Amino acid sequence: MYQDMETSKRTHTCGILRGNNVGEKVVLVGWVHRRRDLGGLIFINLRDRTGMIQVVFDKEVCEEAFEIASTVRNEYVVSVEGEVTLREEGQINHGIATGEIEIKGEKIEILDSAHTPPIYIEDDDKVSEDIRLKYRYLDLRKPKMQQNLIVRHKITKVIRDYLDQRGFIEIETPVLTKPTPEGARDYLVPSRVQKGKWFALPQSPQLFKQILMVSGMDRYFQIVKCFRDEDLRADRQPEFTQIDMELSFVNQEDIIKINEGLIREVFKKIIGYDISSSIPRMTYQEAMERFGSDKPDIRFGLELKDLTEIVKNSEFKVFSNAVREGGQVRAINAKGCGKRFSRKEIDSLGEFVKLYKAKGLAWINVTENSVKSPIVKFLKNQELQDILSTMEAEIGDLILIVADQNEKIVYNTLGQLRLELSRKLKLTKNDSFAFLWITEFPLLEYSEEEGRYVATHHPFTSPMDEDISLLEDHPEKVRAKAYDLVVNGVELGGGSIRIHNRDLQEKMFKALGFSKKQAWEQFGFLLEAFQYGTPPHGGIAFGLDRLTMLLTQTDNIKDVIAFPKTQNHSCLMTNAPAIAENQQLEELGIRIIKER
Amino acid sequence: MYQDMETSKRTHTCGILRGNNVGEKVVLVGWVHRRRDLGGLIFINLRDRTGMIQVVFDKEVCEEAFEIASTVRNEYVVSVEGEVTLREEGQINHGIATGEIEIKGEKIEILDSAHTPPIYIEDDDKVSEDIRLKYRYLDLRKPKMQQNLIVRHKITKVIRDYLDQRGFIEIETPVLTKPTPEGARDYLVPSRVQKGKWFALPQSPQLFKQILMVSGMDRYFQIVKCFRDEDLRADRQPEFTQIDMELSFVNQEDIIKINEGLIREVFKKIIGYDISSSIPRMTYQEAMERFGSDKPDIRFGLELKDLTEIVKNSEFKVFSNAVREGGQVRAINAKGCGKRFSRKEIDSLGEFVKLYKAKGLAWINVTENSVKSPIVKFLKNQELQDILSTMEAEIGDLILIVADQNEKIVYNTLGQLRLELSRKLKLTKNDSFAFLWITEFPLLEYSEEEGRYVATHHPFTSPMDEDISLLEDHPEKVRAKAYDLVVNGVELGGGSIRIHNRDLQEKMFKALGFSKKQAWEQFGFLLEAFQYGTPPHGGIAFGLDRLTMLLTQTDNIKDVIAFPKTQNHSCLMTNAPAIAENQQLEELGIRIIKER
Repeated sequence: MYQDMETSKRTHTCGILRGNNVGEKVVLVGWVHRRRDLGGLIFINLRDRTGMIQVVFDKEVCEEAFEIASTVRNEYVVSVEGEVTLREEGQINHGIATGEIEIKGEKIEILDSAHTPPIYIEDDDKVSEDIRLKYRYLDLRKPKMQQNLIVRHKITKVIRDYLDQRGFIEIETPVLTKPTPEGARDYLVPSRVQKGKWFALPQSPQLFKQILMVSGMDRYFQIVKCFRDEDLRADRQPEFTQIDMELSFVNQEDIIKINEGLIREVFKKIIGYDISSSIPRMTYQEAMERFGSDKPDIRFGLELKDLTEIVKNSEFKVFSNAVREGGQVRAINAKGCGKRFSRKEIDSLGEFVKLYKAKGLAWINVTENSVKSPIVKFLKNQELQDILSTMEAEIGDLILIVADQNEKIVYNTLGQLRLELSRKLKLTKNDSFAFLWITEFPLLEYSEEEGRYVATHHPFTSPMDEDISLLEDHPEKVRAKAYDLVVNGVELGGGSIRIHNRDLQEKMFKALGFSKKQAWEQFGFLLEAFQYGTPPHGGIAFGLDRLTMLLTQTDNIKDVIAFPKTQNHSCLMTNAPAIAENQQLEELGIRIIKER
Repeated sequence: MYQDMETSKRTHTCGILRGNNVGEKVVLVGWVHRRRDLGGLIFINLRDRTGMIQVVFDKEVCEEAFEIASTVRNEYVVSVEGEVTLREEGQINHGIATGEIEIKGEKIEILDSAHTPPIYIEDDDKVSEDIRLKYRYLDLRKPKMQQNLIVRHKITKVIRDYLDQRGFIEIETPVLTKPTPEGARDYLVPSRVQKGKWFALPQSPQLFKQILMVSGMDRYFQIVKCFRDEDLRADRQPEFTQIDMELSFVNQEDIIKINEGLIREVFKKIIGYDISSSIPRMTYQEAMERFGSDKPDIRFGLELKDLTEIVKNSEFKVFSNAVREGGQVRAINAKGCGKRFSRKEIDSLGEFVKLYKAKGLAWINVTENSVKSPIVKFLKNQELQDILSTMEAEIGDLILIVADQNEKIVYNTLGQLRLELSRKLKLTKNDSFAFLWITEFPLLEYSEEEGRYVATHHPFTSPMDEDISLLEDHPEKVRAKAYDLVVNGVELGGGSIRIHNRDLQEKMFKALGFSKKQAWEQFGFLLEAFQYGTPPHGGIAFGLDRLTMLLTQTDNIKDVIAFPKTQNHSCLMTNAPAIAENQQLEELGIRIIKER
């Protein structure tokens, strides 16, 4: 991939020379990674984006070059001229790709000097994140960081090649758009021409890509920045990049097929990983029941089991009351953990579940002679036996039970507990990938806050054909033509088939509690477009940041972005907001309210 | 390029079927472009992005399909099933690519109905731009508009392929950045976390790409949205897309070589146009003297000539006074226009030059017997003869002369007059391309407004080595390592080699009248980065919008963008700013000033 990087200032890059270049005169440029003086010899490790090579200056051979070389320090930018030679047997460095050879330096020119860098240009440099971000330009010199950005670039290249070959057109959608009434918080941009009005930065190109389908563009994609004015998290940036697509004349199968191909191509070309068989599918319902999550990590078991029927009349009121109030009792068998975990560790799991609003964690430790458990005295023998049999309990196991009147809390708590156990037990490896399509998401969910049903995905997601008749009377039972791609418990992307029939769209708005007038006020532009012949269409969007993290085995989103936003804006000046000039604000018709 | 567009709903797209498909059963989907009823036959022209095909329903063969077909109207979305057949000899339509064949329709399904569209889906539809933009989703169904977006996509694909092969890494730079003190007006975005402070949308990724060079990324590119809060023009959008690159360890020759290759590849692959020989170069000085412009259209002559010496002592005071005050007198020979233009047309040129601040236009009409001219009576015979000889005047020519104390006005007026003449005389063709590199731009220009020199390009542009010594005493004479690529009088792109040496950078800031403190206040982040080993680097940026206009032979920038901004925001609702919710403004610490 490094063809044609020759310029007037270099014949080769540092990392590509090998034994077959021996005897060639080369001119290399790069950064001085390290200088070592050994009597009459100076060794310089010269580094560029492609790798590192050793250059030797011999005082007896080239005194002038030797003298200059003796003045260079770490991170100086230099140009060296010399001959590629084989190293002697004992000097071969198997740690670097060019370790078999070195350059006999004949000339050296200092292109730029450097202050002593405040961080080491080494992958395992242990400096704090704040310092790394302050000196981002140095942090980005680390091979791993450069590799991350290169992989990010390669991912987008593979995706563009793949989609271009299949008739997708990359079309740019606006960044300055109209604020949307629903969704997360928009970034706002005051309009100078229409004072008092605001543009918004898009949270996604959803409306635009659907309009492109109405326009007959047939297959659209875009790798595009999206924006949400939310607080920062380790895995979230306020500006993030989506791989976004929309297709006409397709059903869910078509979209899944094309995107399985896409993901297969990316994993093969970027890291040589074969996703050989077809990616398994699981309905939302099954995912919740078995894994307590709509993005389950299926690399390990620890599946949830339903104990509701067994304990519904139990004298242990925590269980029976939860059931009586419409709730559930479910459990995980933490295989072998009864033996493995101390009482203190079990108690800490009890604390853990409280993070997810569970009222407590009941447990049963299956020992050789009997069971140990704070709740066993409340259970009838038959109940205990049924629990142990349902959980397929063996000696040494630990049964972890959650009961709640709110089934979401039961699912979510056990889902999180599953992940916590896998971390404790180190059940997963970073270099294996368990892909999964989750399908048949609920179309609507009831919002207590708004006192109405809201769209799980968005109001243009199509219900499943066989559930349309339920829309009026049992909206909560309607499943959507929506699908997520999950890998190792991370949602990589998701999408849906959209409604393109006006009657159905009206039914959907009705189910959402919108009057026709409200629907038009909020989504009039799209509804108007839908009047002039709309093809059946659907799409999907993937997070480029997450995909890059996955393929570079990186945990921190900041490590796959060149210039991330940080909690403390001032540590990365180029990203910092600043005081605007008063004159400019006046032109915009805006005043800053002084903080009280 | 349309491989694999088959889905569960179609076997082929409309535009790809040919004679060799005869006998195949196909399922096609698309929009009803036109329906014609001919006795017991219904002809439907079915249209999708790939083209158009005729489908025939015969009442006697398939009555049910015929009945449904008889109800469809323009822009209905339908699915048809049938057999590909050859048309009879007399029925072949040479106007469309599928004109040799037609589909014998056996089934038809209406996927969506359509209201009567308010504009025709024809390239030559003559409706007003406002209506076109209001119904953008219909306007984008026109083949020419779809083709423009497809070409735009292809251009970016070719560029990405080319740069990827040469070691360029596409790296995303932030959209929410810090406001810059110089340059055009920024779009501002209030920060919710740091109330009273503002992000800005970037006018270019200049600072970031230079930092990436400091980071050792070596070769960066990006196809990226940039923003300027300026008023709209026919060739300008407030959000526009740049093809942006920066390279380390290069000089001007390297950058020109790589980019000539890039442009050659784009023109070859997109429109099959060969830029065979190497692109000519011209210094800024020569371009101004010969063409009165730093982006000359060299497809035609009408070059400027200098008459200053000839008329410096003329009794025609308009000339001699201009020269005495340090100005110039220059002229164009409008070949044959003396004969061709009426007096009224010549007078209208006199009005034209006033648009460019010229005080007037002197002219000499070279007739068979003598010359006609309002100024000839003020000229000595020798002066007239010298003028005619310098202008290589022949019978029928029209000499157009501009004098002004400000040489910029002389150059610009004659440069514009040249273009006006070429339009009047129809001297250029749209499908020929005259490329030109303009080099040796002035580094600085004096700003009367600011009372100091300002950077022509930006403060990080490198002076030419041989002019560095002039920086202190004759800053106006210093030429920059800057270059523009011009084609047919349009600036396609421009860039420069940057300063990477701190001493030189300090000299540059001094020439700009900055104190060291001011320089650090304004550009501290970059200057700080420059302390840690900066490679020699430079770059260039091209306008994707203009490149697409050129390659699609489109005059209006709105025709190469899917969702352009318009003067009247309300005619394209998705781009309109809107009133923000008060609660959101309060969170931002912002109040709208009521208009007085």
